[in-house]
Amino acid sequence: MDIAILGYGTVGRGVDQIVADIDGIEVRRILDLPDHCVGPRMTPDYAQIVGDPAIEVVVECMGGLEPAHTFILQALGAGKSVVTSNKAVVAAFFDEFARTAEANGACLLIEATCGGGIPWIASIEKARRIDEVTRFSGILNGTTNFIVDSMLKNGADFAETLARAQELGYAEADPSADIDGIDVKNKTIISASVAFDVACTAEFPVTGIRSLTKADLDLLGATGRVVKLIGHGVARDGRYAVAVEPMALPAASLEANVPSNFNLATLEGTTIGELKFYGQGAGSLPTGNAMVQDVLDFAAGRRPHYDFSRGLTYDPALLTGDYVFRTTTPPEGSEPFGEGAWLVSGITAEAARALLDSIVTTDQNAFMARLV
Amino acid sequence: MDIAILGYGTVGRGVDQIVADIDGIEVRRILDLPDHCVGPRMTPDYAQIVGDPAIEVVVECMGGLEPAHTFILQALGAGKSVVTSNKAVVAAFFDEFARTAEANGACLLIEATCGGGIPWIASIEKARRIDEVTRFSGILNGTTNFIVDSMLKNGADFAETLARAQELGYAEADPSADIDGIDVKNKTIISASVAFDVACTAEFPVTGIRSLTKADLDLLGATGRVVKLIGHGVARDGRYAVAVEPMALPAASLEANVPSNFNLATLEGTTIGELKFYGQGAGSLPTGNAMVQDVLDFAAGRRPHYDFSRGLTYDPALLTGDYVFRTTTPPEGSEPFGEGAWLVSGITAEAARALLDSIVTTDQNAFMARLV
Repeated sequence: MDIAILGYGTVGRGVDQIVADIDGIEVRRILDLPDHCVGPRMTPDYAQIVGDPAIEVVVECMGGLEPAHTFILQALGAGKSVVTSNKAVVAAFFDEFARTAEANGACLLIEATCGGGIPWIASIEKARRIDEVTRFSGILNGTTNFIVDSMLKNGADFAETLARAQELGYAEADPSADIDGIDVKNKTIISASVAFDVACTAEFPVTGIRSLTKADLDLLGATGRVVKLIGHGVARDGRYAVAVEPMALPAASLEANVPSNFNLATLEGTTIGELKFYGQGAGSLPTGNAMVQDVLDFAAGRRPHYDFSRGLTYDPALLTGDYVFRTTTPPEGSEPFGEGAWLVSGITAEAARALLDSIVTTDQNAFMARLV
Repeated sequence: MDIAILGYGTVGRGVDQIVADIDGIEVRRILDLPDHCVGPRMTPDYAQIVGDPAIEVVVECMGGLEPAHTFILQALGAGKSVVTSNKAVVAAFFDEFARTAEANGACLLIEATCGGGIPWIASIEKARRIDEVTRFSGILNGTTNFIVDSMLKNGADFAETLARAQELGYAEADPSADIDGIDVKNKTIISASVAFDVACTAEFPVTGIRSLTKADLDLLGATGRVVKLIGHGVARDGRYAVAVEPMALPAASLEANVPSNFNLATLEGTTIGELKFYGQGAGSLPTGNAMVQDVLDFAAGRRPHYDFSRGLTYDPALLTGDYVFRTTTPPEGSEPFGEGAWLVSGITAEAARALLDSIVTTDQNAFMARLV
């Protein structure tokens, strides 16, 4: 089977390197900028790929919204299936991609958008052949896990640890997509769409870990808990809810013990119970591996099919919990929870985020975590 | 697609219950003892199943070596594919089953033999499409994990905890298959066969947890470790080794934090790195779910193919480590390791097992664990 790779950065090279050892899959074309094009496979002209009937699958490794969005639509429109690791573009245009794929007999394969090399999307799809997936949650961002894990192990504060993550290449120069939860938000949208069969809303509570301090970890650690940035969702009775937020989890949970930049994602199904998947959440070879697995699945006849017409309703009331706020003034309706921290019980994730929004108008370094 | 179920105990009923909700899969026949046969689907006569050309897949849920062995061979010989949860029979006859399947255009599907509802076998197979699997390890027995976890959490001793596990139905009246490591041995043989493409030997070191005491957990706990019964294997350079043994693992590892009767299995591949899979290792619905997933995979065109002709050599020198022995007299070449315990460093799993064999001739309650 002939494929094309769009973008020849870290991930694109990883795909090319892995495919070189696999019989029956050939990289026919690679799209890159004109001055990067070397050798007969490389072209700066997308028309040479989308117009080539020999190419069955386009592997998009460019990242960003445009031109990825346009290129994916053109490929699907030409009846070519698309494998992508681009969570931003899938989160933004999943429904449009799914309809275009459907209308043109093509497939969208998105294993590499969530959890790097972890077989997370395929596992959700597999579970759903038998079960309703009623809940999912995950450590879906390696950078923030690395930061929290390093803060705990080295007793270091946030800024210092972020700087070290940037030095090691685990965090971008502009870290906001990671530390403000945007990357996890995209992965949560995609996971919820696949798990619950819904064009998941982009309007839901998202809180990152930018304000997390060593003192917060110590305070919650004293209650036997470890903080992790979690994307999660629930569905029942035709309704669903999702959120991204720091959670303070029991120290003996698997999540609490995920080291370095690894990821761990959990699904819950009606007959299977709880399944957890752990592995490298990023990196050239794990992400490339996930993309090549999608190519091989497609070659073996797997045809993932996304139909979001089931019409689940977004209902934030489904996600309620107890939240700890570390801030200078006690929030209304709170009770004390250790030094400088207050507990607000039984509120929705949306109400917690709204409360944090009002708190940061006077205390911009306030921190919030859901207690588990 | 029409299937037959052999055996209508807990797992067989689980399969029947799950299949009832799935379009396109029909339970045409169920084999059971004559006095259990009620209704038109049930028969005590296997000839009515193996001779029925409408039945494409036989789902074996009987357990035990015979008649399961004969029935599986007859089904495969008739070109019917077999889904089984029977680890004892697959561990004993994997090579014979694989050859018979191959010769008759049938498949053997064994997801439910290892790790209950965890997609462990399919994940090894999937990883191997791209990577060499260089290592695997796992908590593959829920009963022993429940026992160790309860001993730790309740500060109770082995006998008392085993009795409680028996009351709860987590352990058999005769617990030796679990606590002496026989069940994990079978799962290790199957995992190694799939991971390394070898008809795995049955002659390798197996040690259970029958002699584990609360004092052992305390002693190893004081060094920051938790004991788990682990089946594991490595392969490199055309050689492989496997073992089943108690391991003392870092308290912050995921393995150390696996609760109750859950399982956790790990594989390591050349490009994917480390992947871990966690879930219910037993139970009617999770095991039934795994079997129905195999049926659905087969219906979707998955044709697992086991060919053990690669000829890997068993080489125990590949598995070396440091072992702690709790016994009355210091073993030769050991150094002290806490109260009543000694450390023997850098020996093979086979040498450690041989040393334990010699120790138990004078101290039958001695305990051994591999240090990690």
